[in-house]
Amino acid sequence: MADLLVVGSVALDSVETPFGKVHEVLGGSATYFSYSASFFTQVRVVATVGEDFPGAHLRLLGDRGVDLDGLKTSKGKTFRWVGQYGYDLNEAKTLDTQLNVLAEFKPALGDGLRRTPFLFLANIDPDLQRDVLRQMKERPRLVALDTMNFWIQGKQEALRRVLADVDVVTINDGEARQLAGEPNLIRAARAIASMGPRTVVVKRGEYGALMLTDGAFFFVPAYPLESVYDPTGAGDTFAGGFMGYLAAQERIDAAAMRRAVVYGSVMASFTVEDFSLKRLTRLRPADIADRYTAFHDLIRLDGE
Amino acid sequence: MADLLVVGSVALDSVETPFGKVHEVLGGSATYFSYSASFFTQVRVVATVGEDFPGAHLRLLGDRGVDLDGLKTSKGKTFRWVGQYGYDLNEAKTLDTQLNVLAEFKPALGDGLRRTPFLFLANIDPDLQRDVLRQMKERPRLVALDTMNFWIQGKQEALRRVLADVDVVTINDGEARQLAGEPNLIRAARAIASMGPRTVVVKRGEYGALMLTDGAFFFVPAYPLESVYDPTGAGDTFAGGFMGYLAAQERIDAAAMRRAVVYGSVMASFTVEDFSLKRLTRLRPADIADRYTAFHDLIRLDGE
Repeated sequence: MADLLVVGSVALDSVETPFGKVHEVLGGSATYFSYSASFFTQVRVVATVGEDFPGAHLRLLGDRGVDLDGLKTSKGKTFRWVGQYGYDLNEAKTLDTQLNVLAEFKPALGDGLRRTPFLFLANIDPDLQRDVLRQMKERPRLVALDTMNFWIQGKQEALRRVLADVDVVTINDGEARQLAGEPNLIRAARAIASMGPRTVVVKRGEYGALMLTDGAFFFVPAYPLESVYDPTGAGDTFAGGFMGYLAAQERIDAAAMRRAVVYGSVMASFTVEDFSLKRLTRLRPADIADRYTAFHDLIRLDGE
Repeated sequence: MADLLVVGSVALDSVETPFGKVHEVLGGSATYFSYSASFFTQVRVVATVGEDFPGAHLRLLGDRGVDLDGLKTSKGKTFRWVGQYGYDLNEAKTLDTQLNVLAEFKPALGDGLRRTPFLFLANIDPDLQRDVLRQMKERPRLVALDTMNFWIQGKQEALRRVLADVDVVTINDGEARQLAGEPNLIRAARAIASMGPRTVVVKRGEYGALMLTDGAFFFVPAYPLESVYDPTGAGDTFAGGFMGYLAAQERIDAAAMRRAVVYGSVMASFTVEDFSLKRLTRLRPADIADRYTAFHDLIRLDGE
């Protein structure tokens, strides 16, 4: 079990889906990621919140053993996101973004964090992602990066620079096509791998995920849920399960990577069952094991 | 290896996709189905064509050992379909349908066909599907049915009547939602199973297929093709591989059903690589075995 560092956002989200509505609940990429990964390994968070950030949210993460020494409280208000989903839960509509303290976020890693062996660069400005990578005293064993259309469109050069230096990129299907400039998803994944990352994980919402690693594809479906309440955070929860599982392994080979994709899918499948981190906070390790087995049953071809 | 009977259409298709265009080429549900299934078992076709139907097409099927005794040449012209696909190859736009001899199609099974142990009722009027089922002297070991939005909308009562009497239904995802009146695909599949069929196979185009059988789900991705030329016939080719494989098995259990879904996916993955049956006519049994292994590699979680 090795330490896992995440640099990303901690946010207050207001979300409306066809199944309900929540106002300024706990959200943010580093939040979902760290909570999810905490079931597998020791996680440390580097992020920033405003003075208005509720202490109860910090306790929620602290209770899971998440190390919050790198979470800085800055003057001002916490980052806020307001989003809406229609019946096509694959597509979020951003109604409002208030960057607040996130606008000035310049992640500075304390000495204790500069040798963390597993690093997740959540979706932030690619120049900041690159800066974090440079602060590391030793090349981590595994560096993964997430990004989004905003950076692909606005800072693609910077994004490509940092992509060249990471091992894994997680990206959704539309963004993969956009980044590669290629409508065929299979070609798009190969094109992104050629930009640097040995492993490309494409998140496809209700259609699951696919991984291209060392030239070989692996597909996992989404868990067949009868009720999906809110997909917010699913991608970061996925990444948390994926990286958390790998950080806990002695050996990271192709088989471990495949299991990691399934653990990522397992964790994401819980997140979408309720708003914010509600479902995750009710989660027991046995639930994770059970759903992993259920996932295996969904895709296994041999035996009974 | 047991006999497999298909009742469906033989057509002349004109298709345009972003990758090319063909005029009045061989098509039709019974055509794709029987050609695909012929790699696994003995297939017999009940269908109708007009006097204009090219003999070369018949020879193509005959050369694969497909029994065409039930293919009737009627006075008039062969059924024609004109369709177009945009870059979203999941959605066909029908530009023209000329039913011609298909308008008067009343499948009459000769004595030799009334005891065929495997039966596929391709997408035709559900009343005709039911009539074929009634002509069987013995209940076949396995009856599968395909349908489409046209019948779901226009003849749902008749469709539900025949659904109650079949073992397997193959249906695409949009049609599954429409038939069940339920946007969640997992609930939709369960709702369709509750209408009668023990097995529901949902075809999802580029997202693969899922099967619900005896309450358990199984997911298979689409083969990761870098070039898809024409999806026409993919669903019927899938059904041909699925039913053909099962007809060749001694025992039809859950594991055989899963393998059948993969063989269906294998066959469909070839069909979409070229227009009409072009890719299938170049197919060797070794290609099928190789792609089956490749499919297994795409989804296997354990081992190397």
